[in-house]
Amino acid sequence: MHELGVVYRNITRADPTAASALAALGSATVHEAMGRVGLMKPYMRPIYSGAQVSGTAVTVLLQPGDNWMMHVVAEQIQPGDVVVAAVTAECTDGYFGDLLATSFQARGARALVIDAGARDVKTLKEMNFPVWSKAISAKGTIKATLGSVNIPVVCAGMIVHPGDVVVADDDGVVVVPAALAQKTLDAARAREALEGEKRAKLASGILGLDMYKMRKPLEKAGLRYVD
Amino acid sequence: MHELGVVYRNITRADPTAASALAALGSATVHEAMGRVGLMKPYMRPIYSGAQVSGTAVTVLLQPGDNWMMHVVAEQIQPGDVVVAAVTAECTDGYFGDLLATSFQARGARALVIDAGARDVKTLKEMNFPVWSKAISAKGTIKATLGSVNIPVVCAGMIVHPGDVVVADDDGVVVVPAALAQKTLDAARAREALEGEKRAKLASGILGLDMYKMRKPLEKAGLRYVD
Amino acid sequence: MHELGVVYRNITRADPTAASALAALGSATVHEAMGRVGLMKPYMRPIYSGAQVSGTAVTVLLQPGDNWMMHVVAEQIQPGDVVVAAVTAECTDGYFGDLLATSFQARGARALVIDAGARDVKTLKEMNFPVWSKAISAKGTIKATLGSVNIPVVCAGMIVHPGDVVVADDDGVVVVPAALAQKTLDAARAREALEGEKRAKLASGILGLDMYKMRKPLEKAGLRYVD
Amino acid sequence: MHELGVVYRNITRADPTAASALAALGSATVHEAMGRVGLMKPYMRPIYSGAQVSGTAVTVLLQPGDNWMMHVVAEQIQPGDVVVAAVTAECTDGYFGDLLATSFQARGARALVIDAGARDVKTLKEMNFPVWSKAISAKGTIKATLGSVNIPVVCAGMIVHPGDVVVADDDGVVVVPAALAQKTLDAARAREALEGEKRAKLASGILGLDMYKMRKPLEKAGLRYVD
Amino acid sequence: MHELGVVYRNITRADPTAASALAALGSATVHEAMGRVGLMKPYMRPIYSGAQVSGTAVTVLLQPGDNWMMHVVAEQIQPGDVVVAAVTAECTDGYFGDLLATSFQARGARALVIDAGARDVKTLKEMNFPVWSKAISAKGTIKATLGSVNIPVVCAGMIVHPGDVVVADDDGVVVVPAALAQKTLDAARAREALEGEKRAKLASGILGLDMYKMRKPLEKAGLRYVD
Amino acid sequence: MHELGVVYRNITRADPTAASALAALGSATVHEAMGRVGLMKPYMRPIYSGAQVSGTAVTVLLQPGDNWMMHVVAEQIQPGDVVVAAVTAECTDGYFGDLLATSFQARGARALVIDAGARDVKTLKEMNFPVWSKAISAKGTIKATLGSVNIPVVCAGMIVHPGDVVVADDDGVVVVPAALAQKTLDAARAREALEGEKRAKLASGILGLDMYKMRKPLEKAGLRYVD
Repeated sequence: MHELGVVYRNITRADPTAASALAALGSATVHEAMGRVGLMKPYMRPIYSGAQVSGTAVTVLLQPGDNWMMHVVAEQIQPGDVVVAAVTAECTDGYFGDLLATSFQARGARALVIDAGARDVKTLKEMNFPVWSKAISAKGTIKATLGSVNIPVVCAGMIVHPGDVVVADDDGVVVVPAALAQKTLDAARAREALEGEKRAKLASGILGLDMYKMRKPLEKAGLRYVD
Repeated sequence: MHELGVVYRNITRADPTAASALAALGSATVHEAMGRVGLMKPYMRPIYSGAQVSGTAVTVLLQPGDNWMMHVVAEQIQPGDVVVAAVTAECTDGYFGDLLATSFQARGARALVIDAGARDVKTLKEMNFPVWSKAISAKGTIKATLGSVNIPVVCAGMIVHPGDVVVADDDGVVVVPAALAQKTLDAARAREALEGEKRAKLASGILGLDMYKMRKPLEKAGLRYVD
Repeated sequence: MHELGVVYRNITRADPTAASALAALGSATVHEAMGRVGLMKPYMRPIYSGAQVSGTAVTVLLQPGDNWMMHVVAEQIQPGDVVVAAVTAECTDGYFGDLLATSFQARGARALVIDAGARDVKTLKEMNFPVWSKAISAKGTIKATLGSVNIPVVCAGMIVHPGDVVVADDDGVVVVPAALAQKTLDAARAREALEGEKRAKLASGILGLDMYKMRKPLEKAGLRYVD
Repeated sequence: MHELGVVYRNITRADPTAASALAALGSATVHEAMGRVGLMKPYMRPIYSGAQVSGTAVTVLLQPGDNWMMHVVAEQIQPGDVVVAAVTAECTDGYFGDLLATSFQARGARALVIDAGARDVKTLKEMNFPVWSKAISAKGTIKATLGSVNIPVVCAGMIVHPGDVVVADDDGVVVVPAALAQKTLDAARAREALEGEKRAKLASGILGLDMYKMRKPLEKAGLRYVD
Repeated sequence: MHELGVVYRNITRADPTAASALAALGSATVHEAMGRVGLMKPYMRPIYSGAQVSGTAVTVLLQPGDNWMMHVVAEQIQPGDVVVAAVTAECTDGYFGDLLATSFQARGARALVIDAGARDVKTLKEMNFPVWSKAISAKGTIKATLGSVNIPVVCAGMIVHPGDVVVADDDGVVVVPAALAQKTLDAARAREALEGEKRAKLASGILGLDMYKMRKPLEKAGLRYVD
Repeated sequence: MHELGVVYRNITRADPTAASALAALGSATVHEAMGRVGLMKPYMRPIYSGAQVSGTAVTVLLQPGDNWMMHVVAEQIQPGDVVVAAVTAECTDGYFGDLLATSFQARGARALVIDAGARDVKTLKEMNFPVWSKAISAKGTIKATLGSVNIPVVCAGMIVHPGDVVVADDDGVVVVPAALAQKTLDAARAREALEGEKRAKLASGILGLDMYKMRKPLEKAGLRYVD
């Protein structure tokens, strides 16, 4: 359930070093490192390709067609944050454009993740301010009703607590609980370290069947080959 | 983020009297009484019309195409519960049919709310065991991977904590936090008490414009009439 | 484009006799009689099956998540009308429930067609007040912003002018321009008169291939049979 | 790839006794008996609930917005057949209504499965002629372009060969290859025979955990209980 | 309702200077300048990013899977026009490719907006002929049935009259009634003039809360801060 | 129906010269050359724009959320192949990333066409290994259940037999039966040869109405012009 009309000013952010370092690993590796959990639904897409960020979540709950709280959340942004915006109903309106992006960027935000629409795509790309959203829409919003800031929200099917780490790139958006940031970073790095070696083997033509020793288990599961 | 492979046996259920009494109010009135929050996404539909239930949530997190944990959650059901099932990925498979329904009903469950598919629709209707789901599908599932029981889950966009109250009918599914059950019940009843009187007035031809004294605010907002 | 904040009180309704008589023909026959135009998108579905109505349109343009104008349009309803509601953005909220239905019914409305959500489905069915909508949702709305009444609207992809005839049943919703009501009724009746005879032939086992003399054109188009 | 403009008159139908007997088992049990394959996508829904049929497939490939071939396929129907209709492009038009249903029924067809729209829903229900479709739409079609009859088609994601058995009910539509009809019937019956006993145990409160001896495998997979 | 089989040759186009000047403002600003109306549904997306155009609408109503009328509308194009294409049913076929684009471009068309599919995406991008569509599909169409040219059409939920101004960019497609072109241009320019100043303030770190004097209204609405 | 747990090692591939040459024609021209059949549903989109390939299909049937068989199919790849992956249920998980792409590329595969999700989009683009998919998702998969390799599969609504030719570009994915590869190539080239001339005429301002001699048929069909 959502609490409306409240702004929590003091949140516990994940360790900033780990929060920043996770970007380099990417959403797929981080998702694997967490045990294949934490991913937002795949309808969340970047409004332009190529961006890869991570940061600590400040959250905002919006009302449908109303972006008033976006101005409220701006004040709570600290350098290194990623704003995560949920809406109390399904909505594709363009809650966020170049003016808000200018403000967010001035406050130190690295990105916006919004379970609704964004607009001014071309300008946002020029500003290098990435957004992950479920829609792009020129439709503006009103400023009339209260939501909340820094409460736990559900964004694209995933619970996000203020201070969690958000990792976003062309593959999607992953949420890492604040308490697991360092552990996930370690696991993701370990995973990545192994990948270079694997990649070299596969590139040389060695099959995953042999590299992962899958032939026996496949046979045991009943796989048969027909010539 | 989801914790996998854990079953919490001791959960704090909402007051059973309030939890049961909310059914009679219906999802729309309860949703209003909470301040228009708590509703699952409207893609959650009853597999047959006419059922109206409420109860305390026991939650289960499932893996895609795998209903193993449905048997684990069955053991945690107490009379008056509603099982709320989330999945770690989008899936429309039929996780639940007449055998599981027989087991759930024997344990005292009142309904299932599942962010995936169900099957055996005709039999479930005959058994009078209601299900709210996002799909109906004859496709069965395997029993191979672990999820969890009685952790907070996100079901159709809404956070559900074990012990929360779930209210479901033809209009959808609303989640009431355990701590707010009685207060919400009181507010919903107060709301409903007023509705009888309003209904009588409206039925006599009195307009909402007059009954709610809207003419002045509409005029002030700039509404103009053209003959 | 939509004009906001205006209520047109004087509209020219289609001839009431024709407007009422079209119900019996049904949406499919009326749609054929118009030359296969006028149908709303098939996502518009009745909230309960079996209703079949027609009537003259009073239109209302709503804002997302705001049903204030539903009370304004209620005053413009005359017996035999069908309210057609469009929204300025995509929205699935439940704009309409049993109280508004009571008011609409008291004013003489026969149905609501709404390009958004409705709620109180069970009560509306008991009241015998049919609704065609794109969603069912317990989610309520606010009363804060102006739309308009009796302007041309686009509902589920179809332009509806105030006074047009709306024909709705289990197959969908068709819009007949007011000026074409009688002509369409005549054409639909002529069409239906022919169908009885055709039905009898087909029921006796005569093929459409022969009844419609299709064998030659099919052969000419190149159809070949392989034994 | 689809071959256009051809009607195959001689097809090998599955054994009619097995084809008819599968209806009683239902789509979910048949789907399980086949090893969880053969199910059409869950967007295929009955136009009215409660029907449960099986029969041998005669197939038809239609062009978008054109139902000419429906008349051609009518001639190829034999008693006990189910017509399976695919379209070369995505389309929701109402290809099939009461006149065609009269003809199909007169020829002995038991149902229509169509990857597009149907109409005249109320009449079809009165006629007791069930249809599974992806849409309901009053929109009619033209009769201008050729498709084919009794070629293999893809309907709702599943390959259907002429003569295969189709099993359809409220849970969906399953396709059984003609050569596997008897074997699938046997497996489905065996499966169902076991279910009665299981149901009785579960109804008495015995848990699936114990009945299926799942506690050990769950423990081995790492499931832990927290009090 | 749609009139079929008619081509209106004389339409009143919006003032060409205003129609052309609106492109520079972009769809979001124009949409705001009109009072947040006029936007097509957000499923309308450019087939390649970066294009930004405006022009006067010539409209065409197409039949499903049939692009015959695209050749008819080509003759009605005048330099500075944007072709707006609607379809009488939902369809994703590729109605438009490089040959038609060559013809449209030769006639002076600036873009196509189509509530269906387009193809030859790579070539259209090389030709610098932008298209906004709801789908991309290699599927071609036939040329067999009549639609109409320069009648009012509904495209992606918005009424478009021949001669209206269409403004399209990466954010979507806005329709400006011909009579409001100059007024909208003035309002959009005024709006944009203010934005430069605002942007500078926000970039310096001044909050929207202060710049827009929102703190009082937020407090009045009940917003509370928790430390 | 799908056969599970089998790998066919010997498949008959289409002629490699024709299979490779089809790429240059593109999916739209090839689709036309086949008589407007063979196209996968338009939800299949390239994960990055600009790639244009063709090759012989090796097919793989996957289980939901399980990419074990991707390693099995890798061994069956020969230079010039395109892997076509279908899933037994709807799934958007990321079955394929940079490691598998390295392996596929090392084996000589030209592309992957998958009726599910892919990930590592940025790396795949850098590797120049194109993928057509219905989703992009960072979500990984398990390796636990068997599917099959080189059986006929249904991918995005189209039957693909092992050895068929797949043609994919920004417009979509077309399947050419192996036996028709050369014939289709010839027809596509003939079609393209004519297009250059047509393009020149259209570019000079000649209308399709005249070039295709459509004025008479349009008049005959009843088209009328209104001044």
